[in-house]
Amino acid sequence: MSLDGTYDHDNIFAKVLRGEIPAARVFEDEHVFAFMDVFPQAKGHTLVIPKRSQARNLLEEEPQVLSELILGVQRVARAVRSALQPDGIVITQFNGAPAGQTIFHLHFHIIPRWDGVEVGRHASGGMADMEELKALAAQIAAKIS
Amino acid sequence: MSLDGTYDHDNIFAKVLRGEIPAARVFEDEHVFAFMDVFPQAKGHTLVIPKRSQARNLLEEEPQVLSELILGVQRVARAVRSALQPDGIVITQFNGAPAGQTIFHLHFHIIPRWDGVEVGRHASGGMADMEELKALAAQIAAKIS
Repeated sequence: MSLDGTYDHDNIFAKVLRGEIPAARVFEDEHVFAFMDVFPQAKGHTLVIPKRSQARNLLEEEPQVLSELILGVQRVARAVRSALQPDGIVITQFNGAPAGQTIFHLHFHIIPRWDGVEVGRHASGGMADMEELKALAAQIAAKIS
Repeated sequence: MSLDGTYDHDNIFAKVLRGEIPAARVFEDEHVFAFMDVFPQAKGHTLVIPKRSQARNLLEEEPQVLSELILGVQRVARAVRSALQPDGIVITQFNGAPAGQTIFHLHFHIIPRWDGVEVGRHASGGMADMEELKALAAQIAAKIS
């Protein structure tokens, strides 16, 4: 899917938001939902998505929703830092399949980095164990402020 | 430099903002400054930075400044799309040297992607020609809305 197209209400993140697919939830408020990526590129790889949105990507999002989303990203990234003490944090956001986007509901990746540890390719390590993800989510959630 | 530290007022982007270092400017308003990356990873690689900020990274930024910044990123990314018609756009933001950050003034990268064209490593292609960057900047600037 390129940058053109229409929002698919049955995309995986829409199903997560409707509770039709389980997720290791980190944080939720009226604006955003944060949860562990099931194909983590590093320990603590977290996603933040807008809850009320029909934007496939950043280009399409309403300004007010985008503002709330980036504040949610900041809040969760601070908690990831506090919980896991990484040496750095990469934030990425992909628009269109040629840019690496695979799910067409706007989302930001928060990927902790440690000195000397390479980041894996998305899905290269396979799907993570849900119980491990839930334990990480609880660690991060405890540091949300 | 890790995630800890203090803002260096002589970092390169602070100098760009003070006009002490030339930049191929794309867009500027009271909140943000956008310009071409001199070590582009792809044609049209653009940076967006907050103008009034002493944040080294996203974790440290004031919420209001961060909100204005992401809206600037959206505005410029839309113009990049309109001007260059890429197949996708990657947005990245690095926090701390282990995450790939090299200049310690908060910034977002906007990197156009085309089907079948690999993204280069930062600085691997060497410094771009400033006249070429200025021509690209003018193309993108013409599409700011």
